[in-house]
Amino acid sequence: MPGAGKEAGGEGLRDVQYLSSSQADDRIQDLVKKSSDIVLATHIEPRDDMLEERRRASFNASSLAAYLNGGKEKLQRLEELADLLHAQSWGNKSRRYYLSRRETYEDALKAALGIWDLIRNRTITMEDAMEARKLVDFPGGLELHIGMFIPTLLSQASPDQQAEWLPKALGLKLIGTYAQTELGHGTFVRGLQTTATYDPDTQQFILHTPTLTATKWWPGGLGKTSTHVVAMARLFIRGKDYGPHAFVVPIRDMASHLPLPGIRVGDIGPKFGYNGVDNGFLSFNHVVVPRDNMLMRFAKVTPEGEYKPPPPSNAKASYATMVYVRATIVEGAGWALARSVTIAVRYAAVRRQTAAHAGERELQVLDYQNTAADLLPLLAQAYALLFMGKSGMDMYKEFEMDRDQGNFNKLPELHAVLSGMKSVSTTLASDGMEAARRACGGHGYSMLSGLPTLFTHYVQNVTWEGDNNVMLLQTARYLVKRLLAAQSGKGSPGGSAGYTANVDTELKQRCFVRSPRDWLDPAVQSAAFRHRATRLCVAATQALADASGGDVVFEGHPWNSNTVDLIRLARAHCLLVLHSTFADSVAQLAAEGSVDSLAIAALSKLLSLFGLSFIAREAGDFLEDGYLSGQQVDWARKQYYKCLAVLRPDAVALVDAFGLTDYQLNSALGRKDGDVYRALLAAAQASPLNETEEGPAWDSILKPRLNKPTSKL
Amino acid sequence: MPGAGKEAGGEGLRDVQYLSSSQADDRIQDLVKKSSDIVLATHIEPRDDMLEERRRASFNASSLAAYLNGGKEKLQRLEELADLLHAQSWGNKSRRYYLSRRETYEDALKAALGIWDLIRNRTITMEDAMEARKLVDFPGGLELHIGMFIPTLLSQASPDQQAEWLPKALGLKLIGTYAQTELGHGTFVRGLQTTATYDPDTQQFILHTPTLTATKWWPGGLGKTSTHVVAMARLFIRGKDYGPHAFVVPIRDMASHLPLPGIRVGDIGPKFGYNGVDNGFLSFNHVVVPRDNMLMRFAKVTPEGEYKPPPPSNAKASYATMVYVRATIVEGAGWALARSVTIAVRYAAVRRQTAAHAGERELQVLDYQNTAADLLPLLAQAYALLFMGKSGMDMYKEFEMDRDQGNFNKLPELHAVLSGMKSVSTTLASDGMEAARRACGGHGYSMLSGLPTLFTHYVQNVTWEGDNNVMLLQTARYLVKRLLAAQSGKGSPGGSAGYTANVDTELKQRCFVRSPRDWLDPAVQSAAFRHRATRLCVAATQALADASGGDVVFEGHPWNSNTVDLIRLARAHCLLVLHSTFADSVAQLAAEGSVDSLAIAALSKLLSLFGLSFIAREAGDFLEDGYLSGQQVDWARKQYYKCLAVLRPDAVALVDAFGLTDYQLNSALGRKDGDVYRALLAAAQASPLNETEEGPAWDSILKPRLNKPTSKL
Repeated sequence: MPGAGKEAGGEGLRDVQYLSSSQADDRIQDLVKKSSDIVLATHIEPRDDMLEERRRASFNASSLAAYLNGGKEKLQRLEELADLLHAQSWGNKSRRYYLSRRETYEDALKAALGIWDLIRNRTITMEDAMEARKLVDFPGGLELHIGMFIPTLLSQASPDQQAEWLPKALGLKLIGTYAQTELGHGTFVRGLQTTATYDPDTQQFILHTPTLTATKWWPGGLGKTSTHVVAMARLFIRGKDYGPHAFVVPIRDMASHLPLPGIRVGDIGPKFGYNGVDNGFLSFNHVVVPRDNMLMRFAKVTPEGEYKPPPPSNAKASYATMVYVRATIVEGAGWALARSVTIAVRYAAVRRQTAAHAGERELQVLDYQNTAADLLPLLAQAYALLFMGKSGMDMYKEFEMDRDQGNFNKLPELHAVLSGMKSVSTTLASDGMEAARRACGGHGYSMLSGLPTLFTHYVQNVTWEGDNNVMLLQTARYLVKRLLAAQSGKGSPGGSAGYTANVDTELKQRCFVRSPRDWLDPAVQSAAFRHRATRLCVAATQALADASGGDVVFEGHPWNSNTVDLIRLARAHCLLVLHSTFADSVAQLAAEGSVDSLAIAALSKLLSLFGLSFIAREAGDFLEDGYLSGQQVDWARKQYYKCLAVLRPDAVALVDAFGLTDYQLNSALGRKDGDVYRALLAAAQASPLNETEEGPAWDSILKPRLNKPTSKL
Repeated sequence: MPGAGKEAGGEGLRDVQYLSSSQADDRIQDLVKKSSDIVLATHIEPRDDMLEERRRASFNASSLAAYLNGGKEKLQRLEELADLLHAQSWGNKSRRYYLSRRETYEDALKAALGIWDLIRNRTITMEDAMEARKLVDFPGGLELHIGMFIPTLLSQASPDQQAEWLPKALGLKLIGTYAQTELGHGTFVRGLQTTATYDPDTQQFILHTPTLTATKWWPGGLGKTSTHVVAMARLFIRGKDYGPHAFVVPIRDMASHLPLPGIRVGDIGPKFGYNGVDNGFLSFNHVVVPRDNMLMRFAKVTPEGEYKPPPPSNAKASYATMVYVRATIVEGAGWALARSVTIAVRYAAVRRQTAAHAGERELQVLDYQNTAADLLPLLAQAYALLFMGKSGMDMYKEFEMDRDQGNFNKLPELHAVLSGMKSVSTTLASDGMEAARRACGGHGYSMLSGLPTLFTHYVQNVTWEGDNNVMLLQTARYLVKRLLAAQSGKGSPGGSAGYTANVDTELKQRCFVRSPRDWLDPAVQSAAFRHRATRLCVAATQALADASGGDVVFEGHPWNSNTVDLIRLARAHCLLVLHSTFADSVAQLAAEGSVDSLAIAALSKLLSLFGLSFIAREAGDFLEDGYLSGQQVDWARKQYYKCLAVLRPDAVALVDAFGLTDYQLNSALGRKDGDVYRALLAAAQASPLNETEEGPAWDSILKPRLNKPTSKL
């Protein structure tokens, strides 16, 4: 049971001794022992390397771990929950990597229902349950029932409609999902092709799928689990198109679970990852539902077929919901990357490779500069994203307080920052997770490392909840508008894009670094990121204006033929925000004093590494207009290399500080105790292909062949 | 059956019509038809988009396709083979994405044996078989028997030993694999811990696994298929360590397939991909084999236990074998990337997203600049790698002719170029395959797109046959040595690193581009790549000298603490070689005249795009010492954007020119006819989870829940 905590360390790893000297007689054993002694002279146990790593770290990880996990008690509770879940039949992860698609779907459902029961029988609180879902890490058929169907009823259903459907949904009398995406339409919601035509004579809506590409596609739990959907369909009344609206549609018979007449529904097949979820397809063939099934908290259709549009504030409100979701995605990206980096750093600390001379002990791979350069910047990015996630949440809460006073002023800035940050965070996390996996060499390719599954489950985040390019283009749109406003005298210094208010002075700025050490000042680094964002904002706006032939156009050919520079601008802006948020967070932590000052010292070095790794790698952006000189770039790179060396001894402590349990990681390479090879062998032996010694192909395939009369090839 | 060729187009896609108007009466149908007509007014069939793409291309793909595939006849033969294989029970790919690990292992074995039989019954030639293995694309338990065990016997076994084992191996009387890698050792072969101790009294070797990390790990087919291994073990005679040598060891009983006494063997468990192969683990507990089982073509051990070392030429010979393998890997990288890019470009040509105004038709996503920037550079890289692969093969053949005259002079250069190129090509391919997958948005996440499997099977190439960082460091070592030789007057102008002979003049060079158009000259681009490589070579050598405190040391701390710059140098060198090889190949093609001149014109644009995309993205490397001015970088970027626009209409023709069959691609998105949505739905309906309407979880898991008495949450 790789990485399954104490139990794994014991039971799972016991039966890997096989050096019994069985048939060999004493003389042979003595002969062989001489050879073994020479081989083992330079051997070291990974556990001992791991102990030494923790001994030599400059700080103790506990106080930082407590902070990152919401306090000592919360961290303690997470460990209790991990043990509780590991003890459940549906929570035990030891066979997770061996399951077929069907078993994955069934077991994921059992896990979700198991947590549901722990709440009902009061074993855990609702807050525990949120954590438990993350710890079990087994998304299944109920994800969208919990994550979209119920929340949509709460936000968009009228009181009567809520009274009708909510109790059933909360009591699992029905299972719902949210069906918006279609085979032919994802990002462009206005283009949805499913129609909901109102029939005033019968006061019913007729849902219909007019063409193949209008087939609903992707909704989680739709395939084989859900009995109901909230379907987004274009509302038509008397031949007029009112655009997408939400309708509750029963799709399966409650007694037989068979599709209702006119419904065609099923699973969309296997995916890169996330196969516990039965993402589904759905089409309507003239399916009739009563008028009450349109969610009418905001927009309404009267019995006579009169359309009452939603109040304007509604648009802003639903905007706000999107923004909230994106804030959670940013923090999620931090944790996702933290998981992979924890595994890779721990393995790189115990994996040894190459001795210059015979008789020397081999080097820990983390001691090779290129391995440190592969992993430590990812470690820094994970921290940057965790701090950004917390900050994004705080920004959202501030906005909420204003909103309750009917003040939506902060929304555009919040939306712009978090849209781009959704993209940058999920891309950094996805790329970083795969880079961490590759840094583990061959063993990183084994499912037992946990790394492949982490990546394949996570990487969908670059697409859903807003395609990452589209998200960055939303940020770019905001930045260009800010700059145009400033240029026309209507500028404002506020917010992350304050630089748009004084581009002329900024463009004249040059970096004043006069030695490698000067680069360690976070303000110096921030200034560089700010200058880049400013320059790219001016350039992209100019290019857009040129393409527009006059007033800037935010659509059509001018926009579509400049998206590369616009995306580049938005990314640069997000890195500026990410860096300054990291810097502010470390300063604030130091001020609060709740975290060990030695840990904060390490975080400051990590902040330098974060900034310098990007400046060194993307030096062209800073050299192009002469903001940096070649000498300054060279100093940045030298200082970056220094940071790698300085942080090397704290690498393991910095991943320990994420406070991730062996249960959550479920990784043979990421084990806290470093006993990676014993864990790999134990997990391999438990693999289904090893159920019989001769293997599944022997009788039917191999045996007949190996006994065939020879014939020359 | 996604992308499974004609048959798929027919049978598979037939039953996806469901717009029958079943229960709805005429009045309702008329009502709904009004809505449908509005929705469908802007609808277009993907097939029509694809036809239009081919109509507007500037050239016909056939002559280029013939060239890339070794001639018109060869291409024709590939299509015949695809049809032949598709017709075999073991060659049909329609269920490939639905298989469990066990089914994958069994079916892959059947496929390999199926091809074996087609050879034996003379249906296909040996040359056909090599192509068939690529087309079936289903690696399994026999890979290393064919790819390593037999070749090792041919190269390292004595004539007597070959007479003993080769007929059995070729007649499948035994199945072998090559067991070198251990749990604790991959790259560092000298560090292998498995021992082979010679016992002069009995004239036998005793193979032993002295510790857990000495367990053999990863050999393909070792888990449940192989009966024999060539085991690499450290040879000990009378307490003296002679280093790794090769031993043939029977591991399974031929009658029962059970492990022999002292043998512990099994499958290492599921992997990211490649799960048809039973990679295995193996340990020896005082396992005795006769003296004849050490492969003794070169090194020998006499009965008395006297060690006779191999002739020096032997080392060079085995070097040469490695070099050959790396040349094949480079071409393989080109084809791997070509497969993913073909799928992504075809999908991006028929996928439409977002209309600026209602009533307008949506844009093909390939018309968004950022999509073109995601995909067209990858298309250029695929061509660059294919040309590099061919050139690498030619270089190798030249070397072989010299070698047969006992002349090994070309080997170091060949080894340096192909080691680094193995790394650069597999990294470009792996990253490009995943980038192409992401460019397909949500549908790229579906296994039915074929893209996830292509990536997970391929990405191991960055690790095996030489870890990619280690490979680049071998190239860096060569370049530094070339420069040091030149500096000490022992330089030579020859080969790809000729620039090391005149660095002083090169470092003074500045780019003379005076307009965006100047950038279209391949020589201008090559000059930039050459300058970068020269500058980084001088800088890395200097840094190494400083760290060595005097004479340059190629190991230990000086080397290990400078690997980032050394890797950067080697990569820059490889990109120089890649670019000039692309340029030379296009020039040569133009001279030969076998390929349509319009196709060659498109290739020239693709070459410009290849160079400019790297120069624009890695501008810092060229700006740092002032070789390029900011203005010149800006021109390069503008010209790069122009190339994207100019090549856009030829994108589909350029992927058609790879000549890949629907059978090989097995992708719902990559279909040549563009009918992607019908293919997705057809394949989804064939998914095992859809075998029953109610789904696998209904009776046992969901039904009891949905009928439970309500209880508030």
